[in-house]
Amino acid sequence: MQNFDYMTPTRLIFGKGVIEKLPEVMGKYGKKVLLTYGGGSIKKLGLYDKVKELLSDFDIVELSGIQPNPKYDPSVLEGVRLCKEHNVDVILAVGGGSVLDCSKAIAAGAKYDGDVWDLISYKAFAKDALPIVDILTLAATGSEYDCGGVISRTETNDKIGYVDPHLYPVVSFLDPTYTFTVSKKQTAAGCADAMNHIMEQYFCEDATLLNDGFCEAGLKSLMINARKCLDNPEDYNARAEMMFTCTLGCNGIYALGNSESGWPCHGIEHALSAYYDITHGEGLAIITPRWMKHILSEKTVDRFVKYGVNVFGIDSSLEKFDIAEKAIQATYDFFESIGIPMHLKDVGIDESRIGEMAHHIAVNEGLENAYAPLTEQDITDILNASL
Amino acid sequence: MQNFDYMTPTRLIFGKGVIEKLPEVMGKYGKKVLLTYGGGSIKKLGLYDKVKELLSDFDIVELSGIQPNPKYDPSVLEGVRLCKEHNVDVILAVGGGSVLDCSKAIAAGAKYDGDVWDLISYKAFAKDALPIVDILTLAATGSEYDCGGVISRTETNDKIGYVDPHLYPVVSFLDPTYTFTVSKKQTAAGCADAMNHIMEQYFCEDATLLNDGFCEAGLKSLMINARKCLDNPEDYNARAEMMFTCTLGCNGIYALGNSESGWPCHGIEHALSAYYDITHGEGLAIITPRWMKHILSEKTVDRFVKYGVNVFGIDSSLEKFDIAEKAIQATYDFFESIGIPMHLKDVGIDESRIGEMAHHIAVNEGLENAYAPLTEQDITDILNASL
Repeated sequence: MQNFDYMTPTRLIFGKGVIEKLPEVMGKYGKKVLLTYGGGSIKKLGLYDKVKELLSDFDIVELSGIQPNPKYDPSVLEGVRLCKEHNVDVILAVGGGSVLDCSKAIAAGAKYDGDVWDLISYKAFAKDALPIVDILTLAATGSEYDCGGVISRTETNDKIGYVDPHLYPVVSFLDPTYTFTVSKKQTAAGCADAMNHIMEQYFCEDATLLNDGFCEAGLKSLMINARKCLDNPEDYNARAEMMFTCTLGCNGIYALGNSESGWPCHGIEHALSAYYDITHGEGLAIITPRWMKHILSEKTVDRFVKYGVNVFGIDSSLEKFDIAEKAIQATYDFFESIGIPMHLKDVGIDESRIGEMAHHIAVNEGLENAYAPLTEQDITDILNASL
Repeated sequence: MQNFDYMTPTRLIFGKGVIEKLPEVMGKYGKKVLLTYGGGSIKKLGLYDKVKELLSDFDIVELSGIQPNPKYDPSVLEGVRLCKEHNVDVILAVGGGSVLDCSKAIAAGAKYDGDVWDLISYKAFAKDALPIVDILTLAATGSEYDCGGVISRTETNDKIGYVDPHLYPVVSFLDPTYTFTVSKKQTAAGCADAMNHIMEQYFCEDATLLNDGFCEAGLKSLMINARKCLDNPEDYNARAEMMFTCTLGCNGIYALGNSESGWPCHGIEHALSAYYDITHGEGLAIITPRWMKHILSEKTVDRFVKYGVNVFGIDSSLEKFDIAEKAIQATYDFFESIGIPMHLKDVGIDESRIGEMAHHIAVNEGLENAYAPLTEQDITDILNASL
């Protein structure tokens, strides 16, 4: 078991109707608010009006139009500008992981005098950040309970995940009813994203029994509840459990004391999203089984056996590589069964830039140090197998 | 799934050798320290000398002699007096759950002008508390990662568990090597205590798939690792995993969104410890299977089936009450196999005060609202079955 240093200062306020506590919570952080959101789904939900009503005696500046795979320019830069111009006290992020990730970068940038990209690319480190409160509308990334974010810079094809302990939200409001209207496509992609978060922590050199059980429970919960959400989008308990399982995804609790895995599928998928702006969860679902097949070896097979037996109930008396291959196929089949397009070509990616992407990943993602080390050639092979 | 409001601000610094960070951590909270500990095992460990060496430029006042089932008088009262007299900035608790629980009551009392017992008995509420840093030497109670404590008052046979959000330790140092010298008796009792913490959360009206998986993983981790610790007290990975599994025990993470169970075994055991000062984990191990047998019914049987199949691997094709009874027997057998005395008579408790204790429990513990409601007669029956 590895040493670790762990703290999550975020307060989770979970359940139906909890938004009524918003004014009391926000009041602790100040009156000048930057309200961040995406393309307008929060207006359809009635959530925008609700927030404005609850915060009628706050001074609110808005940043809307934050896109999936949130962009440094204009969203982060514009948010930082607004915070500085209006002396914002607190950011209220209403949306999914993209709105949250963008708001984190804004929160750090608002308290920084240099080039904000330096913070995202680890050339400089935040000494402070604005507090972030969020109201989550999509179960997927877990950004509501971690201190990381992923920001894309279009002109350089960069999509960078960065973490900074100043960036934990101070409070996350998690009301599962806000996810009732999430589309089937986004429900499935969110499930795949969260499942991959867990897998990235499960497939590692050494893991505790406790963590393995936590991860296996998380994966089973996501698969069972995602199906229920797709069958009945207003199944409260299914939406609730899916939301909370996703919330824990990147917080660390699934893997405290495990060795680092290197998060290889995320490393590869970030390039896909950066070059082609595809849905992150779909990219992960496409890459994951091909990555699994590629790294299956005498060294890794026992992890796949445990995964196959405990997550998919595969007969433990079978030969170990047989179990592992069945487990990989079951992973693929599950993603396909919830409606995810399972080939890169299905999401508009052909072979033309695979070499370029593989090179970018090999140079930037450090996957030569992953649980199963990946060279540029390995990455090329995984991408080709995913076409 | 139930609504919840959750935050744990404690920083966990886990692993071999982490104590070297102690001066840096303590320096954030001030120079005047109340060092609390128990009967001297930390001196045998060399930990006392190590702490004094690391904190050589701090101003340290000591409170030693804190007993198991920590006492209001003299320990809590004396600690409060020392804090006020010396203007203590921070408490450093070195020991197990008893030292920690006592230190929490001192931390609250030091910032309170009235009768400290009012805080423990919920007649008044803390508005502030001294910060607590701890160095854990026993895997059991989880007090290092929760905001509760249990304090005994001998003259009234009270043993009261109370929680207050001001009482989370600010930092817990968790070095598994400090538990290498824990006796077989205390290792087993710690395991039983932590297992019961999880069971108290697992046996409830409605539980999520995720929580069930977390709890089952925790129970299996504790059983497997406790055996390893008993066989080889210096098995680092076993001590480490056991310590961390215990740490999560009362923190809430095993049951966020589950309905309240009422913690019935703790309610009953607190009277045993208050009247007879027995080892808490042993009392719990004795009560648990008798409580299980007593509440087994058509209403509860499905929980026992899930428990039996997923924790003990009992054949799921058997008849449900058969599975449940096998699961209860397996629970008893496990505790017995790790050396715990499994009858009240073995720990010095006879039938003479059962009526009095059952009445005390029925009046004070609210078990009429437990998952399986318990009347004074039910409690009497469970105690008699435990003799």
